[in-house]
This record gives sequence, C-alpha cells and structure tokens, in this order.
Amino acid sequence: MQDVKTALQSARDRHLNELKDLLAIPSVSALPEHKKDVEEAAAWIANALKKIGMENVDIMPTEGHPVVYGDWLHAAGKPTVLIYGHYDVQPVDPLELWETPPFEADIRDEKIYARGATDDKGQVFMHLKAVETLMETYGELPVNVKFCIEGEEEIGSPHLDDFVDKHQQMLSADVLVISDNPMLEKGQPTVCYGLRGLAGLQIDVSGAKGDLHSGLYGGGVPNPLHALADLLASMHDNKGRISVDGFYDDVIALTAEEKEAYDALKYDEEATRAELDVPALYGEEGYTFLERTWVRPTLEINGMHGGFQGEGIKTVLPSKASAKISCRLVPGQDPDHILQLLEKHIEQHASRAVTVETTHFDKGKPFVTPFDHPAIQAAGAALSKAYGAETAYTRMGGSLPIAETFSDMLDIPIVLMGFGLPTENFHAPNEHFHLENFDKGLEAICDYYNTLAETLE
Amino acid sequence: MQDVKTALQSARDRHLNELKDLLAIPSVSALPEHKKDVEEAAAWIANALKKIGMENVDIMPTEGHPVVYGDWLHAAGKPTVLIYGHYDVQPVDPLELWETPPFEADIRDEKIYARGATDDKGQVFMHLKAVETLMETYGELPVNVKFCIEGEEEIGSPHLDDFVDKHQQMLSADVLVISDNPMLEKGQPTVCYGLRGLAGLQIDVSGAKGDLHSGLYGGGVPNPLHALADLLASMHDNKGRISVDGFYDDVIALTAEEKEAYDALKYDEEATRAELDVPALYGEEGYTFLERTWVRPTLEINGMHGGFQGEGIKTVLPSKASAKISCRLVPGQDPDHILQLLEKHIEQHASRAVTVETTHFDKGKPFVTPFDHPAIQAAGAALSKAYGAETAYTRMGGSLPIAETFSDMLDIPIVLMGFGLPTENFHAPNEHFHLENFDKGLEAICDYYNTLAETLE
Repeated sequence: MQDVKTALQSARDRHLNELKDLLAIPSVSALPEHKKDVEEAAAWIANALKKIGMENVDIMPTEGHPVVYGDWLHAAGKPTVLIYGHYDVQPVDPLELWETPPFEADIRDEKIYARGATDDKGQVFMHLKAVETLMETYGELPVNVKFCIEGEEEIGSPHLDDFVDKHQQMLSADVLVISDNPMLEKGQPTVCYGLRGLAGLQIDVSGAKGDLHSGLYGGGVPNPLHALADLLASMHDNKGRISVDGFYDDVIALTAEEKEAYDALKYDEEATRAELDVPALYGEEGYTFLERTWVRPTLEINGMHGGFQGEGIKTVLPSKASAKISCRLVPGQDPDHILQLLEKHIEQHASRAVTVETTHFDKGKPFVTPFDHPAIQAAGAALSKAYGAETAYTRMGGSLPIAETFSDMLDIPIVLMGFGLPTENFHAPNEHFHLENFDKGLEAICDYYNTLAETLE
Repeated sequence: MQDVKTALQSARDRHLNELKDLLAIPSVSALPEHKKDVEEAAAWIANALKKIGMENVDIMPTEGHPVVYGDWLHAAGKPTVLIYGHYDVQPVDPLELWETPPFEADIRDEKIYARGATDDKGQVFMHLKAVETLMETYGELPVNVKFCIEGEEEIGSPHLDDFVDKHQQMLSADVLVISDNPMLEKGQPTVCYGLRGLAGLQIDVSGAKGDLHSGLYGGGVPNPLHALADLLASMHDNKGRISVDGFYDDVIALTAEEKEAYDALKYDEEATRAELDVPALYGEEGYTFLERTWVRPTLEINGMHGGFQGEGIKTVLPSKASAKISCRLVPGQDPDHILQLLEKHIEQHASRAVTVETTHFDKGKPFVTPFDHPAIQAAGAALSKAYGAETAYTRMGGSLPIAETFSDMLDIPIVLMGFGLPTENFHAPNEHFHLENFDKGLEAICDYYNTLAETLE
C-alpha cells in the first residue's frame, strides 16, 4: 500500500482541480431549467471513466436523467465490485445564505465548499480516483469493477428501479459499494448497515375561489391555512409520536443487541444540541437521539406556504395553502402502505369546509443488511487502518431509495462506506467536504479493493 | 334635486375619465418602492380639491404618508360635514390573477376594474364630484365641508391618531361621513353603525441555526413548521371558537333587538357559499354568518411560510417558519389587551425546543354608534330615495382603525355610507366597482347634504 499512498499524495493537487471542475456543473435534478447541466455532468463522468481506463462506457438514457456506466472486468477469478453514486445535486436556495457561490468550489480551512461537495459528487469522484490510482500503480485492478452513476438520486431515483431491472446482467456483482452517507463523526470511520426509507406527499388545501378581505369574511369562511395547520398538528401527539393510525404497526423493533451497541457509542446529545444551536433537541418520547434518527420513523413538514408573505401586514383570507411532508421509514414499513395511511388520516381529519388534494412524491424502501457479512467486515478493517481508529457499524437516518432495489434485484450485500460528516450541510447552504476524509477515504478504498480480492472469492 | 341629477348625468363621461387618472397611480402604501406614487396620489387629490373650489387645501406631512386637507366654510349657521377617505391602496399580488392590469382602469359590463376602484379611491372620488356638482349647480354648498383624505389606511393608519390629535380644531365638525365600506348586497342601500377593530401579529419561529437534511436529523430536532402549525392549531377549538384564554371576556354580547334585526335581513348563506365556491361556510358554532362576520371576534392566519416552496420535493428540515395572524375585534375588546393575551398564549403553548419571536402590527379599536342618530337617519333616507329601496342599518366586519379615533377625539357621530359591494374583490385581484352605485351614490350624497342642512342645525 505504500506505493498507493505515495501516488495519492503526488496527485492530490491534480485531483482537487479535477473535482472543482465537476462541482462547477449545476446539475440540479429537481429543476427543469438545469436539464442541460445535468446532461453535462453525465458527460463529465463518462469522460472521466474513459480516462481512467474503464471500458464499455456509456451514457444510458432513462425516461429522466441518464445513468452513466463503465466497467473493467479483467481480474479473472476475482470478485466484482459494483460502485453506485449520483452526479446530481440538490437545489441551492436560499442562495443568499451561501458564503461563496455554490457552483464555484472554494477550499478554506481544509474543506472544499460547493453544492455536491459531500453529496455526492465528492465521494463519487473518490471512487474514480481510487480506481485510477490502483490502475496506474499496479497496471491492473485487484478486483473487477463496475460503475453505475445516476442523475436522479436527489429527486428519488424515479427511473433507477426500471433501469436496474432491465440491466440485471450488466450490473451483476458480488458486492455493491456506496459512498453517499456520512461518517458518525469527525475521525470516526463508519460502515453503515441500514438506512431509512422515504415517502413524500404534497397537501394542497383550497378554500374560497379567490383571496378574500378578512374584515368582510373573517370568521365566516374556511381559512385554508388554519385547516392545513390543524391537519398537520393532528399528525403528532404531544409526546412527539406520529398519530396516524397504524403508522407504527409494521415497524421492526430495535433488538437489545442493537440498542446496546448504539448506547456504547456514548453519543453526545448535548454537543449536537449546542452545534445546532436549538434550545432543546426534540423527538419521540422514550428514545435517544440516535434511535430517533436511525431506527424510528418520522413525519416532517419540509415546506409550507399560503397567503401573504411580504413585509408588514395584509389582512387577506387566503384561498389556498400548501405543505410538503415526508416520512422517513424503517425496516418493516412499506412506503406505499404508509402513503395509504396518510391519505386515510387526511381524509378523516381535514376540515369538511375546504378541498384537500394530495400528490405523492418519492418513495424509498428502508434497507438493512447483517453487519457480520465479510464484505462489510473488510470495509471496516480498511477504514480502521486508514484512520487509525475503530470502525463503528451503524444504521443511519437518511434514505437511499435504491438500496432495497439493488438488494432485491441483484441479491448482493451492500456496503455503505461514507466519507461525509453530518455537519457538512447536506441539502443546505454552504455544503462542504473535509479534505481529511478525501485523503484517508481514498487510501481506505484502495486498501479495501486489495483486501476484497482475497476475502470475497 | 332634478337639476343636480341632470348635472350628474351630463358630466358622467368626464367623471369616469378623471377617476381613471386617479386609479392609474399605484399608490401602494405598504411597499416602500411606491413612496413616490403615494405622493403623486396625494398631489392629485389636493389638485382636485382646489379645482372644485375647496379652500385651505394642503398636503400635510406626517411621519409616514401625508394627509390631504381642504375645506369650504361659507354656509353660515349650517352644520359642518367632515369627509374622511384614503387615497392609498393594497398591494396587487398575485399579479398574474388580474384579468386587466391593476393600474389601467378598464370598464366592462358596467363595472370599473382597477386596484382602488372600490377601496377607496372610487368612493373618495364620488365625494369630490358630489361637492363639485352641488357647487356648480347652486353656486354654493348647503353645508360646510371639510375633506380629510389620508394615505395610510391600508397599513393601519399609524400616524392618523397623532394627526387628528394635533388638528382637532381644524377637523372639528358635526358629522363625519366615511364611504369605505360595502353595501350589504347589490341594490340594497346600507348605512353601517358599527365596525370591528383589528390587532395583528407576526410569529417567527426558529429552530436549528441552518436548514438540515431530514434524513440525518429528521425525528431528532425541532421542526419550526411543526411547532408553528401546533401553535396555530392551538388557537381554535374544534367548534371554531378561539382558545386564547380571556379572548372573549370583554365582548359586549349582541342584544336581542340586534339579533332580530339581522335575522330580518334573511341573509342567504347558501348563496354566499355558492358564490365563494367553498364546500361549506365555517366559523364559530352557534352563530349565523352575519353574526360571525359582524359582531363576533376572529383570529385568522393571513400568511404563513417556511422551508421548501418550489416544485417537487426537497427533504429539508427548515430552520425558520413564520406566520402573520390578525384578529378582528368587536366592541368591548381592546387591541392592546388582546395582543397581550395572544402573547401569553404563545408563551404558554409554543414548543420549548424552538425560539419564538413576535412583532405587533396594526391596531384598530372597534366602533359602534347608535343607529337612531339623526345624521344616520338622514343618510338612510337619502339612500332610500336614490335607490328606491329600504335602507338596511347594519354593522360590518371590516376595520376602520380611525373610526374610534375620530369618535373619541372629535366627539362626533360617524356615518358609514359605503357604495362598494362585498363581491368587488377588495384587497384581491380584479378589484372593481359597480357604476350603478357610482351613479346612485352620487345622487344620494348630494341629497344627503341638502337634507343635513335642515336636520342637523
């Protein structure tokens, strides 16, 4: 591994400049006006795959944004690693809160700031450079490698199920490696063995056919904002528990072993509270912060609006109000079933004096794999070596809607080895990525592929 | 009166063209960028007052937008009428819902469409033309007249209290006439003897110091939108009654006579429901629509926002959420006291895991005057004659924050003779004014001043 380390060090400046090029592309998959930019990012990835010696490189269309594929399959008798990642990014609003422009990567204090720096361009880029470095150092790779880099993760990967289904042969592998989740904390290498799922819903409430004067009509006609506030308030009880009938019915309870393992991490809740600068953490009564965010399902309002939003006062009775909510789901819960329960709750609890319409968004199944699988253990070992610290085996709260897809359709173990940090402003202004994890992560990935060649035959 | 009628008919085209000029000025008092336009509207009114023979015309500065004054005091021994109105208008958003531009008045189907057409430029303009017509017809006025036309009514008249206080002598009169309220319905002349007051509040809720990824933090940190929805939902019970402690304590109950009078109007609630196109009317249990909107206090959300508002989904935990609420108050209730009760409710009911800040907006005292006062009866008689229909004596739900000021400081009866209709989109897109009421109203005002000269000596 010393020759790999040396190669990584001498190429570092070039690596960071290349990464800045990738981060400059505003590939926001959610916004139609960025369609061309998303295409440009796909082309960038395809070009990079060719440059590092991948074969069969192809920008494969879907009904939405394309998937970029490339492989190198000349390690006869060795295992095949499928690397998944995404080249699309979240929207950047509110733009005014960014200290430097989101698509002009800026390195300061050993962090690189840009939309996509940690989620997920930075981590996809590490896998490209790990393979490039192994290839340049040894003239070949220790394992067979397939890249599958998509462009719709931030909008729920609506076409990936279909894509994976159609290309099961092409994507078949012995292990799926994904780096799109954060480490537990700075300096704490982490392998994640479970993720929450997702189900999203927009609620549109309509009252009168137009905005009304609150003096003339106030008190006498339904106010859609009140109806919506009432409806949303009805979804939790006063102990932070979700009040939607049947919501928890299928939840697979945390085992005693898992609870013990999480407690052993001695997670510092007060430090999190202070870091986030909130008066208190808040969540379902009877659970720790880690349990609430890793293994308990949620229902959160992601956005809401209606009526006058300018400065000062406007005594208007709005005719419309909208909210977007999403649920994080845990093993046992089915997104479609949860959406049905939400629909039923809305039907039962919404004011009869307004009209309520719903639109379904993303759905992602929750995912868990046993943590004693050799591919996971080898990942933990490589990380421990690179970081000089014990690897934590965890579950995490975010969603990778495709994890269950790959698990179901390709029947392979999934290793989630993320190099981001929870504090790196995923999905928020001033997203960044610590270069310490860029450096140690690259080492760990190279080492992992070397080890996998021996352990997963 | 026949000569007056004839004069009005022959001047009608000129009148409407002059009104279009006034409506073309975007004098939106709430928006700083329209400051010059508000000044232009004040100058327009001052110029118009001079043209119709008013004396002592002055654009009198306040700390906000100016008040325009003018008088004619040569009817020795006759009563003095003070005419109040406002030349400022509401914002026009959402602009895309206007069928014709809000500041390019368009006459179609015997209605004039523009922001301010009915609230209140159109009605102020009628008083200008009534005085002009009487002056041109008789060479003098039957009563003394003072005009007091302000530019801050739509933002709660923050400087009018001070103005009236400082100019009590200048404004002293025997009756105050205001045309800034709607008629009960089309063809139904109306004199209003009471108005609701107003108290407004903005609530800003803050959670974590920045937006968070709902996967990583969802379920574990306070969500300001949930906290705000819970807080707003806590302000009403499930019978449409306001749950703020003490809110109804000072409400002067409706008398049996008043209830009887309102019931006699046989108000068609189903027609209102159908007109507004809502599944059902909604309000405080146990009260009719007229009672809910005339004599019962309200608490309405005028606007709310937080988190992601674009298309699609963004799984963000917002760091901030805001709502604007306003209460319509009824006789007995004091705006400052009600704001104190709201503050206390918020303090007691807001989540301890978030930070809540409040900002107070408009305050207007509720106002009622006995309906058997001669100045009110004379108004009703003039209206009945012009319309050929019985005048209804009513209370209404809107606020004129200045009514109580004038009543307190000048100790005079107030006659609210409005010519707008409830369906004319006050404060909303496609505001308009029926020309039928422009014509009959002008006749009624001229007749009223003639009658007042005899009845109010």
